[in-house]
Amino acid sequence: MSEDALLRWLRARIGLSKIGDDAAVLPDGGPFAVTVDSQIAGVHFPPELDPAHLARRLLAVNLSDLAATGADPAWAFLALSTPPGFDHKRFFTSFLAACETWGVELAGGDLAASPRAVVATLTLIGTRPAGGRWLRRSDAAPGHDLWLGGTAGESAAGRRLIDRGARLRGRRVELPGSFSGPPALLAAARRAVRRHLLPEPQMALGKWLGRQTEGAAMDVSDGVARDLHRLCHESSTGAEVRAELLPLPDRFAQLCAAIGSDPLALALAGGEDYVLLFTLPPDVSPPERFGCRRIGRITRAKSIALIDGGVSRPLPPLGWDHLEKQEAPAS
Amino acid sequence: MSEDALLRWLRARIGLSKIGDDAAVLPDGGPFAVTVDSQIAGVHFPPELDPAHLARRLLAVNLSDLAATGADPAWAFLALSTPPGFDHKRFFTSFLAACETWGVELAGGDLAASPRAVVATLTLIGTRPAGGRWLRRSDAAPGHDLWLGGTAGESAAGRRLIDRGARLRGRRVELPGSFSGPPALLAAARRAVRRHLLPEPQMALGKWLGRQTEGAAMDVSDGVARDLHRLCHESSTGAEVRAELLPLPDRFAQLCAAIGSDPLALALAGGEDYVLLFTLPPDVSPPERFGCRRIGRITRAKSIALIDGGVSRPLPPLGWDHLEKQEAPAS
Repeated sequence: MSEDALLRWLRARIGLSKIGDDAAVLPDGGPFAVTVDSQIAGVHFPPELDPAHLARRLLAVNLSDLAATGADPAWAFLALSTPPGFDHKRFFTSFLAACETWGVELAGGDLAASPRAVVATLTLIGTRPAGGRWLRRSDAAPGHDLWLGGTAGESAAGRRLIDRGARLRGRRVELPGSFSGPPALLAAARRAVRRHLLPEPQMALGKWLGRQTEGAAMDVSDGVARDLHRLCHESSTGAEVRAELLPLPDRFAQLCAAIGSDPLALALAGGEDYVLLFTLPPDVSPPERFGCRRIGRITRAKSIALIDGGVSRPLPPLGWDHLEKQEAPAS
Repeated sequence: MSEDALLRWLRARIGLSKIGDDAAVLPDGGPFAVTVDSQIAGVHFPPELDPAHLARRLLAVNLSDLAATGADPAWAFLALSTPPGFDHKRFFTSFLAACETWGVELAGGDLAASPRAVVATLTLIGTRPAGGRWLRRSDAAPGHDLWLGGTAGESAAGRRLIDRGARLRGRRVELPGSFSGPPALLAAARRAVRRHLLPEPQMALGKWLGRQTEGAAMDVSDGVARDLHRLCHESSTGAEVRAELLPLPDRFAQLCAAIGSDPLALALAGGEDYVLLFTLPPDVSPPERFGCRRIGRITRAKSIALIDGGVSRPLPPLGWDHLEKQEAPAS
């Protein structure tokens, strides 16, 4: 059973529930947003990843879920299962420093021995900023513009480089020996690896969106296409995405050529972008400093279309399914 | 580094923090208690455990932490990482039924694929009952009686039987083929296996304790001895435990003889009892229906002593360390 199918089954059993947004608001409409996410060695990150980087990634990925609700992060609860030899002090030194950066207090957790892989599960609780509302996936309306908080596809390119041996050591990305090219391409490749391992959650953008009176939001973890399907499903709308408006990183076409991937497929279905996907009325634009790009619009028709070179075709929910490991054919 | 040493290091870095009680109270002294615990296949339960039983165990173990704070359980967040073939529907059907039993709403979570072992991490949020206070480990005072909410050692005996092949299938415990004896002994062995796999959290006792004006509480997960050390450390007190007052299950001596374990060592250091360890002023006793037993008293001297056959000796913090897997010699 796929993740989406299982979630549908669960929601049917529980009835209308809090499940569906990136974080749950407690009590209903209340002052707290709660989110949980796991990072598993060999699934979400390479097993030999520096514990200091793992700690930052774990926090960033979870913060991105809070950003999608417009919350101010407040408390963290960490369940950390580690095989023998794991460097806890290195992990926690980095984790606590990152917590300080983002205004998070480590408030509890659970330490356990794991037979093999590191499994780190973080629960984050955020509060609603004064004057803010909770952002939801279900608040998109026909006529809204569809926005993306930053570039897409770069993280997926970074994952492919890591699969081929790229590593982050300290602040330096080591590319696979087989990877060569002009300096600008190498720089783009290093940036992609760093982007994949150490994403930057869009907390400030989330809070800005929470101060707007209208619009839906979610964070892109499983790919723009799949996550857009989820947003439209929750809002009972459709959407049109214009391929030429998708924000791509510098030198992305060259990077994709070098790793044998299709740029559009990576951007739409690569996943783990950890930027916000959101909607706003057409007369509202986020401030320039957030680097957002309008990529299309929300429609009344419930289909989800990709307009590419003037041709409209259905955009299937390609992307990452956490249970089926089904990914778009990224050529 | 042991778990306790790591926690000391962490607390020194964070300063005085919420870490230390079974659940954290948010905001400081506020209306919510939060707890997180993981169950890992091969560590906390046998890998072939029925997903329906795993689901109940996961919830029970976490509820026990909330019981130790006197909370009313409210919301659950589940991070579930599973290898291919895991029966999600079986897990969730059982989990949701158990949630209904205990008044818990599944409010969010994260599903992921795990390369090998099932890792289930549950975050529970509870609310403070009207007229209740939050229970803490640090509220023991010299002169308090020391109480245990139920029998100790039975779960550890059950774990030893499982290590030798005992299994729970549906409602029936199958004992290892090598295990034989009179029916009463077999019944005690089956009860131990069930107690280990499906503990009963003491929610009602926790709420009753929260209505008393004095006293500390925690739940016994890592062994009476180790957890008593933690309670006394938080309260800056010592304690005296009277061996003859320790509540043991029926036929526990015979069961321990059959599995080659020392009853006192299992009761003091076996762990995963999931009963409350608490203190009360000497003029207050919990109602009979909770099945609690007074096992000693809290002292001003900071030593922790076991009085056995009239002889007092230091009771070391034997028990389960989640990082060192150090256990008392329980034979």
